[in-house]
Amino acid sequence: MKLTILGCHSATPRTNTNPTSQVLEIKNHMFLIDCGEGTQVELRRNKIKFSRIKHIFISHLHGDHYFGLVGLINTFSLLTRESELHIYAPKGLKEVITLQMKLSKGWTNYPLIFHELTSKTSEIIYEDDKVEVYTIPLNHRIYTNGFLFKEKENERKIDITAVTEANINVAYFRKLKQGADVENEDGVLIKNEAVTKDPLPAKSYAYCSDTAYTESIIPIINNTTVLYHESTFLEKNEALCVRTKHSTPKQAATIAEMAKVETLILGHYSTRYNGYDEFKSEAETIFKNVHLAKDGKSFEF
Amino acid sequence: MKLTILGCHSATPRTNTNPTSQVLEIKNHMFLIDCGEGTQVELRRNKIKFSRIKHIFISHLHGDHYFGLVGLINTFSLLTRESELHIYAPKGLKEVITLQMKLSKGWTNYPLIFHELTSKTSEIIYEDDKVEVYTIPLNHRIYTNGFLFKEKENERKIDITAVTEANINVAYFRKLKQGADVENEDGVLIKNEAVTKDPLPAKSYAYCSDTAYTESIIPIINNTTVLYHESTFLEKNEALCVRTKHSTPKQAATIAEMAKVETLILGHYSTRYNGYDEFKSEAETIFKNVHLAKDGKSFEF
Repeated sequence: MKLTILGCHSATPRTNTNPTSQVLEIKNHMFLIDCGEGTQVELRRNKIKFSRIKHIFISHLHGDHYFGLVGLINTFSLLTRESELHIYAPKGLKEVITLQMKLSKGWTNYPLIFHELTSKTSEIIYEDDKVEVYTIPLNHRIYTNGFLFKEKENERKIDITAVTEANINVAYFRKLKQGADVENEDGVLIKNEAVTKDPLPAKSYAYCSDTAYTESIIPIINNTTVLYHESTFLEKNEALCVRTKHSTPKQAATIAEMAKVETLILGHYSTRYNGYDEFKSEAETIFKNVHLAKDGKSFEF
Repeated sequence: MKLTILGCHSATPRTNTNPTSQVLEIKNHMFLIDCGEGTQVELRRNKIKFSRIKHIFISHLHGDHYFGLVGLINTFSLLTRESELHIYAPKGLKEVITLQMKLSKGWTNYPLIFHELTSKTSEIIYEDDKVEVYTIPLNHRIYTNGFLFKEKENERKIDITAVTEANINVAYFRKLKQGADVENEDGVLIKNEAVTKDPLPAKSYAYCSDTAYTESIIPIINNTTVLYHESTFLEKNEALCVRTKHSTPKQAATIAEMAKVETLILGHYSTRYNGYDEFKSEAETIFKNVHLAKDGKSFEF
């Protein structure tokens, strides 16, 4: 599981800070999460192949989270993309994009599929044999969802030396991976644990931005491997968090602690600050494993 | 008159090329012309004060000419702008912007005034005591206007030594600047030419992008000081110009020659080319005074 931060700043793009966008690589997927202005250039700068992006998740319709989307959709067309593109976003975005397409007298030359979100409770919005994606309803000034990306339980791993010694036919390997006991070539029942190893633990990533402090998300993100939680303002500016429905690093850390996540990543910093070390130290008073998002930085888990 | 190129490339923004946007400084105005994605960052990079931009002119509703506008409007709000912002653009843009404002449950905290353009003939769209702006109907795949920015005739310049010697009261200076003859303190009529100098010639700038070769613009841009004319493809790719309604450098130069402009600036290059010297040399076979637009470059006239 690899997370690349394309942008982790709030409000306005500047020469040295990008608005929100990130790419999550999980089980061979490249999920794009939010798409502030300039995202397509950051994708190029980080050498992420456009063709690998097939699913885009938009948290909410504030500009710093989606103003780069129409340009990206447009660029995919100019580059003669043919494969489907799925957009998961609050209701309204489809109208924004289709209106702009209509005015340009153009349309995508690939299938563009909108999944409009309106539910106020968590729902599954994507599933295949390896991954599931759920919404995480957040508490912001407008309708906003975070997203939970979960690997499905991995298969058990075959111990090649053990299965050879146990004289098990290759036809049973599928069953072994699924955890079943099988008969060997001599008709003897072999216990699964004797010839397989535990699978890699299934990983998960929860993206929560933008949001005020809200404990309602804890049951959804419980035991998540990595939590990205916004922390727009430092504690000294907590009044701004209340007014604008954002969080402080301590609030993000409290959520991380209560949800027993392994790792917390902070981001969505207000552009009023020049450095971010204080975000880390404030959060560390409550939760130990804290990382700071940074434009262009990748995390592997 | 100063022109700053923020971006002069077509189609898709890349790490090293920006889509179309430029700033024209004329008679203390800062006119923003087109606003591709990333324009607000380029304005910062070129240290152009946001507050000085009061009028934005959008040629047409292809993304590489306006996808940066909604973000700029939004940023002006975040920076607590209070002064009016006027947008001159094809009908439809107002709906795009207002829809996005509505979805974000926000509105500008400054007056945002749209001037929707629909005329297929040239019309005056802005005028004050120093400058006039006219549309230049172009020939592109969708409704498109270029823009002609014209200084009004400048006032004559007072020759201080001459007016002192001629014994003219300062109360008559206003009339002298306007070209009138006046009486001196002794009641003698003084000819205007004897005590004033010719004014600086009025300058003008014509922006023509995007367009196929079209001689219909010549009467409008005749004798313009500076013509910016798109040249998307080299002559070897002229078939693409026909199909997509763009121009070659030679076509741009032919327009410059026929309209007797002083200076031609080429731009809106397709991103398929790595260098642009050939654009200049092709145009120079027809017109002598050719300059190449370049992101971040300023021209003074």
